[in-house]
Amino acid sequence: MMQFVSGGVTAAKGFTAAGVHCGIRKNKSKRDLAMIYCEKPCAAAAVYTQNLVKGAPILVTQENLKNGVAQAVICNSGNANTCNADGLEKARRMCELAGEALNIPAQDVIVASTGVIGQILPIEPIENAVEDLAAQLSTEGGTNAAEAIMTTDLIKKEVAVRFELGGKTVHIGGIAKGSGMIHPNMATMLCFLTTDAAISAEMLDEALHDVVKDSFNMISIDGDTSTNDTLAIMASGLAGNPEITQKDAGYEIFCQALLMLCKELSKLLAGDGEGATKLIICRVNGAKSDKDARGIAKSVICSSLFKAAMFGADANWGRVLCAIGYSGCQVDVNKVQVRFTSAMGEILVCRNGAGVEFDEDLAKQVLSEKKVTVEITLGDGDAKAEAYGCDLTYDYVKINGDYRT
Amino acid sequence: MMQFVSGGVTAAKGFTAAGVHCGIRKNKSKRDLAMIYCEKPCAAAAVYTQNLVKGAPILVTQENLKNGVAQAVICNSGNANTCNADGLEKARRMCELAGEALNIPAQDVIVASTGVIGQILPIEPIENAVEDLAAQLSTEGGTNAAEAIMTTDLIKKEVAVRFELGGKTVHIGGIAKGSGMIHPNMATMLCFLTTDAAISAEMLDEALHDVVKDSFNMISIDGDTSTNDTLAIMASGLAGNPEITQKDAGYEIFCQALLMLCKELSKLLAGDGEGATKLIICRVNGAKSDKDARGIAKSVICSSLFKAAMFGADANWGRVLCAIGYSGCQVDVNKVQVRFTSAMGEILVCRNGAGVEFDEDLAKQVLSEKKVTVEITLGDGDAKAEAYGCDLTYDYVKINGDYRT
Repeated sequence: MMQFVSGGVTAAKGFTAAGVHCGIRKNKSKRDLAMIYCEKPCAAAAVYTQNLVKGAPILVTQENLKNGVAQAVICNSGNANTCNADGLEKARRMCELAGEALNIPAQDVIVASTGVIGQILPIEPIENAVEDLAAQLSTEGGTNAAEAIMTTDLIKKEVAVRFELGGKTVHIGGIAKGSGMIHPNMATMLCFLTTDAAISAEMLDEALHDVVKDSFNMISIDGDTSTNDTLAIMASGLAGNPEITQKDAGYEIFCQALLMLCKELSKLLAGDGEGATKLIICRVNGAKSDKDARGIAKSVICSSLFKAAMFGADANWGRVLCAIGYSGCQVDVNKVQVRFTSAMGEILVCRNGAGVEFDEDLAKQVLSEKKVTVEITLGDGDAKAEAYGCDLTYDYVKINGDYRT
Repeated sequence: MMQFVSGGVTAAKGFTAAGVHCGIRKNKSKRDLAMIYCEKPCAAAAVYTQNLVKGAPILVTQENLKNGVAQAVICNSGNANTCNADGLEKARRMCELAGEALNIPAQDVIVASTGVIGQILPIEPIENAVEDLAAQLSTEGGTNAAEAIMTTDLIKKEVAVRFELGGKTVHIGGIAKGSGMIHPNMATMLCFLTTDAAISAEMLDEALHDVVKDSFNMISIDGDTSTNDTLAIMASGLAGNPEITQKDAGYEIFCQALLMLCKELSKLLAGDGEGATKLIICRVNGAKSDKDARGIAKSVICSSLFKAAMFGADANWGRVLCAIGYSGCQVDVNKVQVRFTSAMGEILVCRNGAGVEFDEDLAKQVLSEKKVTVEITLGDGDAKAEAYGCDLTYDYVKINGDYRT
């Protein structure tokens, strides 16, 4: 049995977290520096943005994770520490500071930054705050950490799952932040996961890559792949299960739980996209291949025209067909069926690639919900996929028209 | 010498045009049916959307242009005649009606429709209006035709060029419409070109494909590739130049003039994108290959975050670097230079991949103009490209949040 539980990033045994305001942001009521710590060194793995322009913290984290070991995370918001001449130096300094405060090697620290690109990161606020940050670490600190990594996010994103593995109770938990510059293909924004499962660094890395393609890589908020996206996981092993060292039944269970967690975080991220008023899920069935199913789901969820129509609760299914058509995927257009569903009901709008008469009032009601699913049924095979996105709104334009000032 | 002249789609010898309100649109003050006619059969060619979902008019035009001959265009706005069970029948009927009114074979008519997808096209308004439309054909009718093909466009798009070819004065002219669902890769919206040059259908087709990749295929307004995009050209031969039948010097001159015309129409289309307040040109120099230059220019011009920053006149160059980084093109990030220019001046914002100090007030002034160029200089080679787009605004969301009602 797998179930969601409370506790977020500190639900797993051995982990504590904290978040403070250190002063990178001017607004004193917004925490801007987060730390996650494990009482013992962990097996660790991460996946990063595919953007050629990579934030300096990513390069340092990649170095530090070469040996598959980490014990802490330090992360600031308000400044991405990217495209700066002194970026690497500052990112390494953040690891040193965390290491000194925690009495662990700097090489065992995962570092991340999120915020504006191309402005020099002031290190003094972090130097001044890091001792206090470490002193505040607790099993109740996950929520503060979740807040400290937020940029334009409106809600904190914390999820945890509990399940049985080798006769032991195991947890995976995490925190994440969005909410602009988010797009498929390893655009996971920042997400830090912890687990008390015993699993080797190699298998942890495999599991993360397996799961990401059906969760974080299926999110699109605005089609922009960030320079700083990082998804990192640390496994303490304190649950006491037999260590997972190969792709056996235990590995499968672990992956199932990890996918359940990551899908939930993906929905939270998509629904809290910049300016979003609703979560849009695009579910594709009957595709020729997994690749086609994913490609079509992403194409629809990325369409600016479709997203604007969803904002207006307008059942403009022609835009769904249009996005299917330019997805580059194999599809027999004459077999396409499109249906909108939400808590208010469901409505069929297109069958055999052509419109069907439908009740516009009911469609408006269905599409006015906070969570709307567009279900696309193809007649080309058995493959399916789900993508996560949001509507395109006035507020997206407002937020991004003047983000720096 | 090549120069822009007045006259639009009727600048070339032999062509007349007209546009009327027939009733497909409810608003009686908006023309919705256009016709272009040549006094003799023309060599003709066209390029179409790459969307798998193709409007019925495209399929009929493809049939009709198989022999490389056309004598007229009929085009309605307000309804795309796409994803309808009776689409082909209606598109063929439009050709018949135009053919009867003009006393030419239905097979010599180019047909196009633009507007909402998935609503049955009412044919009666066209049946009732076609005689009157044909009666109104004149060399002054191009402007009415330009208006009749508009959907959410705010300005009419008419351009013509004049040049010398084989000792004769030759014209190419055209009308076009945007303004949403526009994206690179053969997303030319609707554009009808006419010329009095003598040129074979084969060479006309070659020229059109040559020119489109540096003009219409470099536009992006919202990343959505429409189902109905058509760029068609008819050549009457009435200029009396020696017929172009191979890729000789005359062909090169013709292509130069055609490119000059198509780039100008592309800028008009981009600057009048849905909700746009300004034209954005992205110019890339020093790329490794033409493919990389085009890819980078397109990636920047397509970025929602960059487009929103341009709306806010915010010199957020980090988003330019971000879009370069995820373009999938080969680039040495550490050599990238970014500069914004407009009628108000120019401002360097990034050198060697990192920010430089700049005057924010001047930057705001530069970016507040109606036409802004972002110049990206790479250090990877000699290739260059230019892409055309617009800012992302509240009005884009407004227009597309409730387009159908």
